Amino acid sequence: MLSFVNDYSEGAHPAILEVLTRTNLQQEPGYGDDVFCASARDKIRTACADPEADVFFLAGGTQTNQVVIDSLLRSYEGVVACVTGHVAQHEAGAIEFTGHKVLTLPQHDGKIDAGELDAYVSGFYGDDNHDHMVFPGMVYVSHPTEYGTLYSLAELEALHEVCSRWHLPLYLDGARLGYGLVTPGTDVTLPDVARLTDAFYIGGTKVGALIGEAVVFPREGMPEHFLTMVKQHGALLAKGRVLGIQFDALFTDDLYTRIACNAIECAEVLRAALDERGYRYLVPNRTNQVLVVLEDERLAELKRSVAVSFWERVDETHTAVRFATSWATRMEDVEALIQLL
Amino acid sequence: MLSFVNDYSEGAHPAILEVLTRTNLQQEPGYGDDVFCASARDKIRTACADPEADVFFLAGGTQTNQVVIDSLLRSYEGVVACVTGHVAQHEAGAIEFTGHKVLTLPQHDGKIDAGELDAYVSGFYGDDNHDHMVFPGMVYVSHPTEYGTLYSLAELEALHEVCSRWHLPLYLDGARLGYGLVTPGTDVTLPDVARLTDAFYIGGTKVGALIGEAVVFPREGMPEHFLTMVKQHGALLAKGRVLGIQFDALFTDDLYTRIACNAIECAEVLRAALDERGYRYLVPNRTNQVLVVLEDERLAELKRSVAVSFWERVDETHTAVRFATSWATRMEDVEALIQLL
Amino acid sequence: MLSFVNDYSEGAHPAILEVLTRTNLQQEPGYGDDVFCASARDKIRTACADPEADVFFLAGGTQTNQVVIDSLLRSYEGVVACVTGHVAQHEAGAIEFTGHKVLTLPQHDGKIDAGELDAYVSGFYGDDNHDHMVFPGMVYVSHPTEYGTLYSLAELEALHEVCSRWHLPLYLDGARLGYGLVTPGTDVTLPDVARLTDAFYIGGTKVGALIGEAVVFPREGMPEHFLTMVKQHGALLAKGRVLGIQFDALFTDDLYTRIACNAIECAEVLRAALDERGYRYLVPNRTNQVLVVLEDERLAELKRSVAVSFWERVDETHTAVRFATSWATRMEDVEALIQLL
Amino acid sequence: MLSFVNDYSEGAHPAILEVLTRTNLQQEPGYGDDVFCASARDKIRTACADPEADVFFLAGGTQTNQVVIDSLLRSYEGVVACVTGHVAQHEAGAIEFTGHKVLTLPQHDGKIDAGELDAYVSGFYGDDNHDHMVFPGMVYVSHPTEYGTLYSLAELEALHEVCSRWHLPLYLDGARLGYGLVTPGTDVTLPDVARLTDAFYIGGTKVGALIGEAVVFPREGMPEHFLTMVKQHGALLAKGRVLGIQFDALFTDDLYTRIACNAIECAEVLRAALDERGYRYLVPNRTNQVLVVLEDERLAELKRSVAVSFWERVDETHTAVRFATSWATRMEDVEALIQLL
Repeated sequence: MLSFVNDYSEGAHPAILEVLTRTNLQQEPGYGDDVFCASARDKIRTACADPEADVFFLAGGTQTNQVVIDSLLRSYEGVVACVTGHVAQHEAGAIEFTGHKVLTLPQHDGKIDAGELDAYVSGFYGDDNHDHMVFPGMVYVSHPTEYGTLYSLAELEALHEVCSRWHLPLYLDGARLGYGLVTPGTDVTLPDVARLTDAFYIGGTKVGALIGEAVVFPREGMPEHFLTMVKQHGALLAKGRVLGIQFDALFTDDLYTRIACNAIECAEVLRAALDERGYRYLVPNRTNQVLVVLEDERLAELKRSVAVSFWERVDETHTAVRFATSWATRMEDVEALIQLL
Repeated sequence: MLSFVNDYSEGAHPAILEVLTRTNLQQEPGYGDDVFCASARDKIRTACADPEADVFFLAGGTQTNQVVIDSLLRSYEGVVACVTGHVAQHEAGAIEFTGHKVLTLPQHDGKIDAGELDAYVSGFYGDDNHDHMVFPGMVYVSHPTEYGTLYSLAELEALHEVCSRWHLPLYLDGARLGYGLVTPGTDVTLPDVARLTDAFYIGGTKVGALIGEAVVFPREGMPEHFLTMVKQHGALLAKGRVLGIQFDALFTDDLYTRIACNAIECAEVLRAALDERGYRYLVPNRTNQVLVVLEDERLAELKRSVAVSFWERVDETHTAVRFATSWATRMEDVEALIQLL
Repeated sequence: MLSFVNDYSEGAHPAILEVLTRTNLQQEPGYGDDVFCASARDKIRTACADPEADVFFLAGGTQTNQVVIDSLLRSYEGVVACVTGHVAQHEAGAIEFTGHKVLTLPQHDGKIDAGELDAYVSGFYGDDNHDHMVFPGMVYVSHPTEYGTLYSLAELEALHEVCSRWHLPLYLDGARLGYGLVTPGTDVTLPDVARLTDAFYIGGTKVGALIGEAVVFPREGMPEHFLTMVKQHGALLAKGRVLGIQFDALFTDDLYTRIACNAIECAEVLRAALDERGYRYLVPNRTNQVLVVLEDERLAELKRSVAVSFWERVDETHTAVRFATSWATRMEDVEALIQLL
Repeated sequence: MLSFVNDYSEGAHPAILEVLTRTNLQQEPGYGDDVFCASARDKIRTACADPEADVFFLAGGTQTNQVVIDSLLRSYEGVVACVTGHVAQHEAGAIEFTGHKVLTLPQHDGKIDAGELDAYVSGFYGDDNHDHMVFPGMVYVSHPTEYGTLYSLAELEALHEVCSRWHLPLYLDGARLGYGLVTPGTDVTLPDVARLTDAFYIGGTKVGALIGEAVVFPREGMPEHFLTMVKQHGALLAKGRVLGIQFDALFTDDLYTRIACNAIECAEVLRAALDERGYRYLVPNRTNQVLVVLEDERLAELKRSVAVSFWERVDETHTAVRFATSWATRMEDVEALIQLL
């Protein structure tokens, strides 16, 4: 049975396990005060070209979104997000759990539009009754988005400009950032992300780590007493080394982007085959999530040999599914999949 | 430099790393639906002598306390705990963050007393104004406690009896449960814990795992939609396998209790030496946390060669510190420490 | 200067002030245990034709929505509401403040559609990933709606049917319920509301009271320990008599519906004049909120003599405004307004 | 049947009802933008000798404590209060509901001690682990306290000094402030309270109003967007006039303190009689709450003719009860009570 069901089906890149094993009995302080976290922070600062960046390691994506958003918002503010954003749809209300509303904007292939954001905020302050409404307090984007699409540099710069003008922190969910950074045609680099946002995270769980996300607050932007807020959210690991070791390995010799390339190469080969056979995409993209529209009969047949993710019903007889590749995908499995298509 | 600063200074028991490495590229479903979690659950049920127990894996102790307590309480209820309990003091308000008050009872060597619990609950319902107060909704104990002490079976049974009578779920924080189960003189077994409580967790982080705590709800007692609540708290790991693999290894061939014995043996040797030299304990116990009262001068000298944890000021010239042993403590380090005392 | 800006510009119906004054020094227990609350509860039960209904008095509308919704939902559930619903837009995030998401459905003249509700809930449970999403836990409607429209009996029955099938409590926000009950053409009575919902409130603040809303839980449906939850939300008044006296007066000799008729009569006269002059409505309705589309120039002129509420921008040159009538509106003011149109 | 059960058994001072009735049909804007609120704010500023004070009107005491404390604290902070403080005991967890812990200090006749506060905060920052604990973020006192006692000016100044030094806002719960200000022997005036605190409220509910508390933030200290936070807590009244009218009346010609004197005079007469007969007090005080220790038999007999509040069990055969006087207490009732003693 082949599986393209998601990008977190395997463990970690072997280089990570090697370091975990090699350093296992080294005694280190807890809560992120260990040498591995320190080293990983330095390497991430370098990769971001921001020597002043604050870096904090957390365990998972929803947790990271919850903690970062709650720590950046005042109590009467909400987070502006795309209607299809992860925080709006697939986090079981983790944002609302902390008392904040997710204020939604329309999606354009999974992205929000800077002009629409500006119009929304402008309309908010133009409304006589806005004191009775949730204030927009920050902006959330994901890159790649839920549909595997990417912001262009111009789009990110436009969002940055609008956010700066309205004093709204811009936060970027990079659960799959590694894949986005090496996607053909993208003009957005990690230093761009650091320069144009106020907070973002570099996803580990889906890009080679066992668990872990590296939160970056560019320009010393970490909220005061962030560690205490992390603890209060139940998100502080005693053995911070587990996260530090992984990101230290991932940011040594460009491992993070190198392994991301495997996912993209596999996806490109798959897409070429799909294109050739005339398949249609739900939303075209060139990252590691291939969203294909299939006839239901065809899908039923395929599922006998391949595990995929249901994405959404398209019409009476068609369904969109996701083929996800990852750092761990074997090209031979892609070829086997292509045979089946 | 020797370190007895805590029981989470190293990584994981090597057997865990071996399984992590060996199964690394095996593709598995996310969110705890993998074969490792399934196997670990089965082994834990067997160890608990409760074939109906529900088992769920979480990442850390404060997180576990927060999620379990919030899921067991109604919105107008609080959790009753010892004034020195971890949830009352050292979780940065993680319980209050979810809207619940920690209702405190006096401590007796870190433990609560069943009679005092009964009197408190009885007094609550006897107060004409109790509708204006926080209802006691469950009881929290830790075993070992913050002071390293243990409940006797009779004490646990008395708490169980009071809780049952008042329909209060009894929850046991087992961050160091492994050490407690193999302490000389204890008459409490894992099946006893399962029989006498409504929820508890088997601590992994401090007893041989990289991260992870196994929450057990005996007798099919897991709250409905617990997974969704875990997600809502930001506590659901995509790669549940990371937790499953560890507990599967820990509950294979009694690894969990076997490695716990090392900590206790080391602590016993240390205690014998301390006794011989006439040292005084803050609270005597026989688990892996040795709480010793030292003259400040003596402590300053000792700290040049040994890392220990500050526990509390005792008087003008004395301080209590903790020497913690663990599954990873080397007897030669204990001996070196003894030389220094 | 005329004012049609809202329906809470005056104090209370004089009959209420008369009773407040007459009974002022009568000593009564606090927190709703007084004779006035008891009497008001009885009269409301009778008016609802539900002798088993539980009735609780609160101070304001947003407060009532917050307390009722939070008390009816489990922690992992959200409330389903119209995208234009008061809880979704104009309560400053009071629902999210209690940890719950507002799940929105499309609006049809301010109303939700039973078929769309059914499709939404069905789609939710049909989604493989629904355990990672907010569960629909109850349904919120307002009657009249934010656009002054009313559900027909058939529409309410259809919603009731869908809600019952999915075990979702149906909650009706009756901030202006009095006006809705006496609107020409409505076929929904107070007993219908009690029969078809699981909770609703009879608005006092906008229909003749100084402050106050009467929450009704038909068929003994009040959540256990509701008073404690009210206190926990900061919503319990020590002098419950203030609310009891008002509702007792409003439900004596049909005062509530009698005074509501004044608002409707005034609105009908205004509408007839508007129709005659060819004015266009944002959303046509026959309740006490007349939503008219005006050319911006015309509006600027009008505002020199009449206070109205901004509702929304319609296009580049037109604005929708609200003329609200109430129990206190004087027909002579309506006539003066008509002169100005 | 006589009643001394509490100080909120009657309606409002007649002067308030007179103004409510006289201004009833005057049309005014909602949400506190009316002329009455404006006038009341001015008069309170004058009474506080603080022309820059921000003033906001809320409905009840627990609500006020909840909103003010939540608006002054950062998310990781708690409020320091006396273990017997209202927020710690009798608000059904309203503070924890907003995510904040109540950090308790010992009580001395219901008061906290400035030295103990200083030691506590100093100890907190001196603890190596304080990042894992709830930060003290503000200090709550009540004046009069739960035991009817009063801070001396020196005590308040000492608290102010400690709070200033640690940058902790000092908040004073003045549910019964009126009574405290006119108590024989007190040296604390309203301008003192304004000068020495960062927020406080002037209680209306228990001192002559139907409902209502006036929150004062001296020196323009109201948190930004406070109105929105009030709305978010469900605490914003549409008809703000109801609160404005009452405080405008109470602060006209010193009505507030004049009517408070009645309570104190009645209490003094009662105390003289109790002293003469050798009764013992739970905690001696000279405000409007007389806390007397009675033999249970004596109490049972008394309760046949007088309603009182249970306060606490003193020993096997004695109970402390409260006789509360108020602005509305009639001296003839006090005399009748004395006959019964």
